[in-house]
Amino acid sequence: MVKTPYQDLEERFKRMDALGGALSMLHWDMSAMMPPGGVDSRTEQLAVLKTLHHSMITDPALPDLLDGAEADQHLDTWQQANVYEMRRSWVHAAAVDADLVEALSRACSKCETIWRQARKAADFKAVLPSLEEVLNLTRQEAQAKADKLGVSAYDALLDQYEPDGRAANIDVVFSDLSAFLPSFLDDVLSKQAAGPDILALKGPFPAKKQKALGHTFMAALGFDFDHGRLDESHHPFCGGTYDDVRLTTRYDETDFTSALMGVLHETGHAMYDQGLPKAWRGQPVGSDRGMSVHESQSLLIEMQACRSPEFLEYAAPLLREAFGGSGDAWSVENLTRLYTKVEKGFIRVDADEVTYPAHVILRFNLERAAISGDLQMADLPGAWNEGLKDILGITPPTDREGCLQDIHWYDGAWGYFPTYTLGAMTAAQLFAKAKSDVPDILPSIAKGDFAPLMGWLRTHIHAKGCSLSTQNLITQATGEPLNAQYFKSHLKARYLST
Amino acid sequence: MVKTPYQDLEERFKRMDALGGALSMLHWDMSAMMPPGGVDSRTEQLAVLKTLHHSMITDPALPDLLDGAEADQHLDTWQQANVYEMRRSWVHAAAVDADLVEALSRACSKCETIWRQARKAADFKAVLPSLEEVLNLTRQEAQAKADKLGVSAYDALLDQYEPDGRAANIDVVFSDLSAFLPSFLDDVLSKQAAGPDILALKGPFPAKKQKALGHTFMAALGFDFDHGRLDESHHPFCGGTYDDVRLTTRYDETDFTSALMGVLHETGHAMYDQGLPKAWRGQPVGSDRGMSVHESQSLLIEMQACRSPEFLEYAAPLLREAFGGSGDAWSVENLTRLYTKVEKGFIRVDADEVTYPAHVILRFNLERAAISGDLQMADLPGAWNEGLKDILGITPPTDREGCLQDIHWYDGAWGYFPTYTLGAMTAAQLFAKAKSDVPDILPSIAKGDFAPLMGWLRTHIHAKGCSLSTQNLITQATGEPLNAQYFKSHLKARYLST
Repeated sequence: MVKTPYQDLEERFKRMDALGGALSMLHWDMSAMMPPGGVDSRTEQLAVLKTLHHSMITDPALPDLLDGAEADQHLDTWQQANVYEMRRSWVHAAAVDADLVEALSRACSKCETIWRQARKAADFKAVLPSLEEVLNLTRQEAQAKADKLGVSAYDALLDQYEPDGRAANIDVVFSDLSAFLPSFLDDVLSKQAAGPDILALKGPFPAKKQKALGHTFMAALGFDFDHGRLDESHHPFCGGTYDDVRLTTRYDETDFTSALMGVLHETGHAMYDQGLPKAWRGQPVGSDRGMSVHESQSLLIEMQACRSPEFLEYAAPLLREAFGGSGDAWSVENLTRLYTKVEKGFIRVDADEVTYPAHVILRFNLERAAISGDLQMADLPGAWNEGLKDILGITPPTDREGCLQDIHWYDGAWGYFPTYTLGAMTAAQLFAKAKSDVPDILPSIAKGDFAPLMGWLRTHIHAKGCSLSTQNLITQATGEPLNAQYFKSHLKARYLST
Repeated sequence: MVKTPYQDLEERFKRMDALGGALSMLHWDMSAMMPPGGVDSRTEQLAVLKTLHHSMITDPALPDLLDGAEADQHLDTWQQANVYEMRRSWVHAAAVDADLVEALSRACSKCETIWRQARKAADFKAVLPSLEEVLNLTRQEAQAKADKLGVSAYDALLDQYEPDGRAANIDVVFSDLSAFLPSFLDDVLSKQAAGPDILALKGPFPAKKQKALGHTFMAALGFDFDHGRLDESHHPFCGGTYDDVRLTTRYDETDFTSALMGVLHETGHAMYDQGLPKAWRGQPVGSDRGMSVHESQSLLIEMQACRSPEFLEYAAPLLREAFGGSGDAWSVENLTRLYTKVEKGFIRVDADEVTYPAHVILRFNLERAAISGDLQMADLPGAWNEGLKDILGITPPTDREGCLQDIHWYDGAWGYFPTYTLGAMTAAQLFAKAKSDVPDILPSIAKGDFAPLMGWLRTHIHAKGCSLSTQNLITQATGEPLNAQYFKSHLKARYLST
């Protein structure tokens, strides 16, 4: 029997998905398991697999097959959405030639490895040549895609992570936040300074116990350990495949709060992955909707749900038991103050939700300048420190706490940063609607029961895959497009109202 | 500049090697890390990668390139050997079509996973349909290769693991051993029965401490932890790539001896991998020489070197310290008796070196019958138990200790088993020559110094890659072809002379 163009495409994309899954596993292994001497052979493996993937997506047969599938009158709406996403992938891939893909893969693998050492040694110069190479190749990639998409070079990169995302639209939102945050931050800092002192928790907090607690909270959230696991890496992430989700975190034995919230954050990502429609596994439409929606899921869990007094009511006895804690420092009230403490800090991943947008805006500005050619990498440390001083009035002691802290640019992920703050705004809007639809959500969390919340997310977000655009997904779930007011309201309610 | 056929082939085989490395890492992950629910997506990944590998090795350009490289007068001897191995790979691969390769990959991944559960439950019937499917596809593969190689179906499978190995030659050696072993075994058992009782070591022996000891001995052997690591899996193996060697073992907290010798065995494999010529990484000639030579390296370390009184003189104080052992049971003499105890047992991987060949001969006979069609898989448990009774006079209590114990057949590795005993004979011959060349080898091992032994192996075996045939490798290293007398002499010296 002759395959229809659509059936042919489904088979091809299923194979590409498997190849992508293999790549994802090798990336996870590289971060969480691989001994340092394995880097050369791993770099080779990743480059070869990416090249094969690229040749599958740029197969000369694809344009005709896509045309044929788009003309097929018998497809249902999910199949149509599947074809739409196939076209998207093809446009991005076909814009870039195979040599550039391979060169970029090699450069990123190498740079990421050097970055690990350079970050440890706070030695930006050690990684500068590799970073320049990554940026140079990324700019070539951006320009090639920009020509095909008819957008700016930066928007072409952004579009990879945030379909239809445009810097000009982000500028509007970020300007709004930039106007709101400084005085709001002052108010919050004044209020917290006038409030009760936050009592410190005395360690040490053994990594083994932190990990066991992480497993407990993952289970409470509904993480399916039959389809995933938790390990350690320098830079925490959620990787693997939808059927085999690999989370990582890092443990600080003098302070458990960062690893714990890190695990909750990554579990938010993982629950989205595990909740994607099983009937569409391996097909583009069965994937997540893009980075801002993905980040909305992690931030909804970490920031909206798990820094609430309700979550800490459930968690406090478990924390006390794990670490032998007692006294006022371990009360729900003090833990809530600890987990909602606002502070000007250097490290993005440790930042509270009030100052976090400032870190993102800094990176957004710097990466746009780098892609446009206005910022040379040799000037990055200076530009970083100046930018941070402008926004938060602080200067990192070394580049380790500055421009070396994040893996993204060193691993080739330019255009990714703004999705964090788009995600934070989306999370606030979704959580507000979920609580309004299901009033039992917060009372249940206070008992360690996330089922009411997860049920709402499964129905309105996870099960949709990417059958809808980001804007339609948010509108169908909440009744209106993304609206920054929910984020601001959330911040005001949590930090100024009580 | 135009590439020569040889240069073109080098590039192609380097890419295939990287793809093979990716496959190897995904196999390791599947055994050591993957949660059970990941099996479907992993099966898909492995199948797609194997298909891609197959299409690279069967690329229509290869026959002409091979002809061209074979006619090239400017190649040095290593390059010529490289082309010879390329041709070998191509003949094996081109014999089988892509659909069969993919079907076999899927069947093996699925069967291996079911086998893990079936083995635990001692439930052969649960895995029977999957095993029948694997065998059916394997027989198709064997016949396809047999037609191209002009050998029997079984020899075609054997040739994959043991280049130029033939069942008829193995029959000669195995008949010799079959004639030697029964009365020798009786003599050994009588002698050991008349000797001092072996004192039992009292546990428990925590897995954590066993692992730490394993690391200590790996380091003593010279294992490069910058290029490898030790983990756990159901069936211990040495996988990964030559630059990133992944060892696994399994721990029994009531008996540390099996895991410990298992680690030493796998480290013998690993030292070979890590010692292969770095200048030829990624090329066929830079690979190991085949399974019997590979096994000779693990058995040389485990059986020849590490069950010697000299090794135990070094190891005993470390064992006593790790497990808090004291008294006569922990003396070098008792440990030596324990580590050279001969016993009729059910489990191949736990077998002593005297009874081990019996386990191999059983499997060799059964797998030949299965491939020829004389043995149906439904009859395997009965045939197994009958065969074991004939050879060793014992019957396993359940199939867990019988035909479910080894991963090989369930994972598609038919024709592999005889290489274990060929390896044992090779190990005896190599170790005899090494000790004769370097008299300091055993005295050094008594001090935990493996450098003299490893130096000899690096020079005479590891650094050769597969630039020589197995027979030439052994002859150049020892002055004569494989000779079973060394193995028999070793057994007589260790088990009957003192």
